[in-house]
Amino acid sequence: MIDETELEAQIRFLREADRLKGIVRASPLIDGSRRENSAEHSWHLALYALVLGGCADPQVNIDRVIRMLLLHDIVEIDAGDAPIHGAVDPKRQEELEAAAADRIFGLLPGPQAAEFRALWREFEEGASPDARFAKSLDRFQPLVQNVAAGGGTWRDGNVSREQVHVRYGPQIEAGSRTLWDHAKRLVARHFG
Amino acid sequence: MIDETELEAQIRFLREADRLKGIVRASPLIDGSRRENSAEHSWHLALYALVLGGCADPQVNIDRVIRMLLLHDIVEIDAGDAPIHGAVDPKRQEELEAAAADRIFGLLPGPQAAEFRALWREFEEGASPDARFAKSLDRFQPLVQNVAAGGGTWRDGNVSREQVHVRYGPQIEAGSRTLWDHAKRLVARHFG
Repeated sequence: MIDETELEAQIRFLREADRLKGIVRASPLIDGSRRENSAEHSWHLALYALVLGGCADPQVNIDRVIRMLLLHDIVEIDAGDAPIHGAVDPKRQEELEAAAADRIFGLLPGPQAAEFRALWREFEEGASPDARFAKSLDRFQPLVQNVAAGGGTWRDGNVSREQVHVRYGPQIEAGSRTLWDHAKRLVARHFG
Repeated sequence: MIDETELEAQIRFLREADRLKGIVRASPLIDGSRRENSAEHSWHLALYALVLGGCADPQVNIDRVIRMLLLHDIVEIDAGDAPIHGAVDPKRQEELEAAAADRIFGLLPGPQAAEFRALWREFEEGASPDARFAKSLDRFQPLVQNVAAGGGTWRDGNVSREQVHVRYGPQIEAGSRTLWDHAKRLVARHFG
């Protein structure tokens, strides 16, 4: 049973989450019409997890990965998006995101706030198999978007094939060797 | 193990899914800046399921509900969105959506195409407890958006309190009595 105060807190969090639809990322939609926002990116990533579960290590729990991906960008409501090819101070960004997690997950009833914050933290640290697969998809999806859009952020920022390997490779490969092998073929064809 | 042809088919599906970000719904963002699209709406609904699982019947499997909600609007890429307060021929819409499901889920490898299509069909029919809760959220979220935005599609379309009860009530209540009780209070306060 849910009591009324708890439900009101949950709806306050869900209303606050609406603001993620206004956080614009660097990656384009494939049709090039505009850049994607972090809410639709989160949906797309959760769908990637659902479709590509077979590329994860067998111990990975895909439903947990999906939960993680639904939550992973919510801190951007306060902290903004830190683009892959941008010049962001990682320590400063980490502090901003930790404060954002406190405030935003803190809107929820206590036990749920703690549960979601822990799942977000696990993603950020990337130390568990579930988090590694989630983080792998978080690099693989923008790579697919860029290739399908004919360059995207790589063309905008004059990013070379070698830079793509350095900036995407370790994170994708740590979560799925299969996805990185495939990504390398996409990249080779694109820069070919 | 995933073979290369299978993986290519999956990525073709994930690229096609990107088009859901361009399908615009009737409901506004809460800040009133624009209407939401079906991809970010799907993310928001999956988050609703994650947060509000305690409002579902105990036999409901929230991870299955989330999977269903991630997939439920993909047919709109071909069939378009049918707004709650719009005049759509339900039989024609059903045919369009069935054809869309065949084409879009058909991009996936056979067993996955069948699995996703069955999950989408289960949602559409609303006959299982999981589908009823998913459909309940699909009415509850736009109601919350409208109230929070100061009227939204209700103000645009001169929708009365009685019409809100008729058009949202049965579907929300069938999935969660708790959510409908709460919704009625939000609606009373809004029209009050």
